[in-house]
Formats: sequence, structure tokens, C-alpha cells
Amino acid sequence: MDFKQYIRVIPDYPQPGIRFKDITTLLKEGAVYQAAIEELAAFAKQLDVDLIAGPEARGFVVGAPLAYALGVGFVPIRKSGKLPYESIKAEYDLEYGKDALAVHVDAVQPGQRVLIADDLLATGGTISSSINLINQLGGQVVGAAFFIELTYLEGRKKLGEIPTTTLVQY
Amino acid sequence: MDFKQYIRVIPDYPQPGIRFKDITTLLKEGAVYQAAIEELAAFAKQLDVDLIAGPEARGFVVGAPLAYALGVGFVPIRKSGKLPYESIKAEYDLEYGKDALAVHVDAVQPGQRVLIADDLLATGGTISSSINLINQLGGQVVGAAFFIELTYLEGRKKLGEIPTTTLVQY
Repeated sequence: MDFKQYIRVIPDYPQPGIRFKDITTLLKEGAVYQAAIEELAAFAKQLDVDLIAGPEARGFVVGAPLAYALGVGFVPIRKSGKLPYESIKAEYDLEYGKDALAVHVDAVQPGQRVLIADDLLATGGTISSSINLINQLGGQVVGAAFFIELTYLEGRKKLGEIPTTTLVQY
Repeated sequence: MDFKQYIRVIPDYPQPGIRFKDITTLLKEGAVYQAAIEELAAFAKQLDVDLIAGPEARGFVVGAPLAYALGVGFVPIRKSGKLPYESIKAEYDLEYGKDALAVHVDAVQPGQRVLIADDLLATGGTISSSINLINQLGGQVVGAAFFIELTYLEGRKKLGEIPTTTLVQY
């Protein structure tokens, strides 16, 4: 399926010169959204995944249905200060700005095989921080899956040898 | 399935006297999470739903897999200022605090049947604001589904005649 036609490009958002990729136009088309998740699920099935982890908030829209489709657990990776239980955190650089991500200390058991899901692979800052958090808990990041990849930002370099799939490339 | 045993209660979070219901302990158990979504999906199937809408961020963890399970679209209801395209907004009262929610102006087509999904029905502030937004766009809220209901806060009164289901009650 040609997923790109369902993504809306918004010029100069949130800053001049950024062409923001809006996935809400894809999400609202049920058959398209379902097909997107199924394609990521087919990739994830090869990796013997125990858990899906997804960063707040758009990563939940990719990772949560992916976890459901595979019948595995979902770990929300949240902005620092949003989790109620004891947490660890890791700072990261955004395409524009800086932030910190956190997970509960009991989110992942040592040795669990984790796939990280998000809407967008840009500079790879969010994914690097997410990998850092999973590793700190003793989990093994065995894959990464995204709706969109901005190839010119070379975020894949941050993923090293981790098997990675993306549905749409710019 | 007894979902309540998978929910962690955290005393005095985020404020003294609040017993916060942490769903991350449910989400990480794949079979339990899947069963929870399936139970909500069985309810939603009776309602001939066109779209699921879920408020940021935990509503995404309930609503997105529910949309996937039903093969319908998902509308993210976001905190004001987070959406890239032209939006409408509605203020709401939290159990503790105040905020505003927003949706894109093209998120729902007039006449579409929408089910709103979230993790928690407390005072009903978030759901009231969500219903307000869907109604503004000409959509019809035909159902509401939650993991948890705090019955003593009487949020159901805000839902009026809208068919509502919750998996766990306190």
C-alpha cells in the first residue's frame, strides 16, 4: 500500500523550514491504519519480541496496536515527570529542542526482547534515548519500527545493527 | 478476566490523598492487555462505530489498539497546541487541575459514529470535553469505553444516555 499519500505535509511547523509530517490523516482511515500496523507486525514477528516500547505520545499510536496485534506487552516511554512509580530517565535531542524520557524501573525484565516503535525516525534522538532506557533495565532491543523515516537526517546511524523497518521515506 | 489485580495503586500521587491507578503493570502483560482490548472491542462492535477517538496520552494506549481491532480509524484528541493543522479546542477540568483538548477540524466527518476511549473515567471532565469536540465537528458520540471507573466521582452522569463500558471499578 502507498502509505505516503495518506500523510499530510505541513510546511513551517513547528518552526520555519520544517516540513512536518502529520499522520492524523493516515490514522483516521481505518483500513490504511490497520494495514500499516500489519506491515510492522509482520516485521516484528520475525524477531521473537517479548515487548513493544513506544515513546509518548505518537509512539503510543504505533506501538500500542502493534503490541495488541502480536499479543505482547506494551511499555509506554514517557516524558520525564509523567510516570507515577519509581523511574529511570535519559535525556535526548529532538530535531528541534531537548527533552528527557523515562520508564518505570520494572517496565522490562532482564533479558526481555524489546522492539521500539514510533511514528517518525528523524535524527534518531528519541530512539537513542529509548534504547538507552531499555538497556539500563537489562532488556535487549531487537528491532525498531516506524511509520516514517526522514532519510536525510540519517537517524539509522544511531540504530547500528538493530533491524529497522520504516513504511514511508522522505 | 480479573483485570483489577494487574492495576497498581500508588498512594498520594500526583497529590496527597489521591490513590493513582497505574495501568503500566497491566499493559506489560501481553495476554491481559489483549484481553482488555478484546472486551472493549466486543462492546464497540454492537455500536456500529466509524471512528475511535482517544485523549492524549493514555487514551491512545486504549483507543489505538481498539481502532486496530475494529478496523476503523483513530482520532487523537490532543492537549491544546500539539496539533499541526487547523484545530478546535475545548477546556476541561481534571480530577486535579485544568487543561484544554483539541482536534483537527477534519478529524471527523459530519454524521460519523464515534466511540471515545480512555484509560480512566473519573469526574468525567476529559470525556465531556472530548464529546464537545466531536459534536462541534458534527460527529455523533455513540459510545464510551474505559479500562477503569472511579464510581465515587460519578463521571457517568456526564455521559448521559451514551452507552458506556468500564472493565474495572473502584
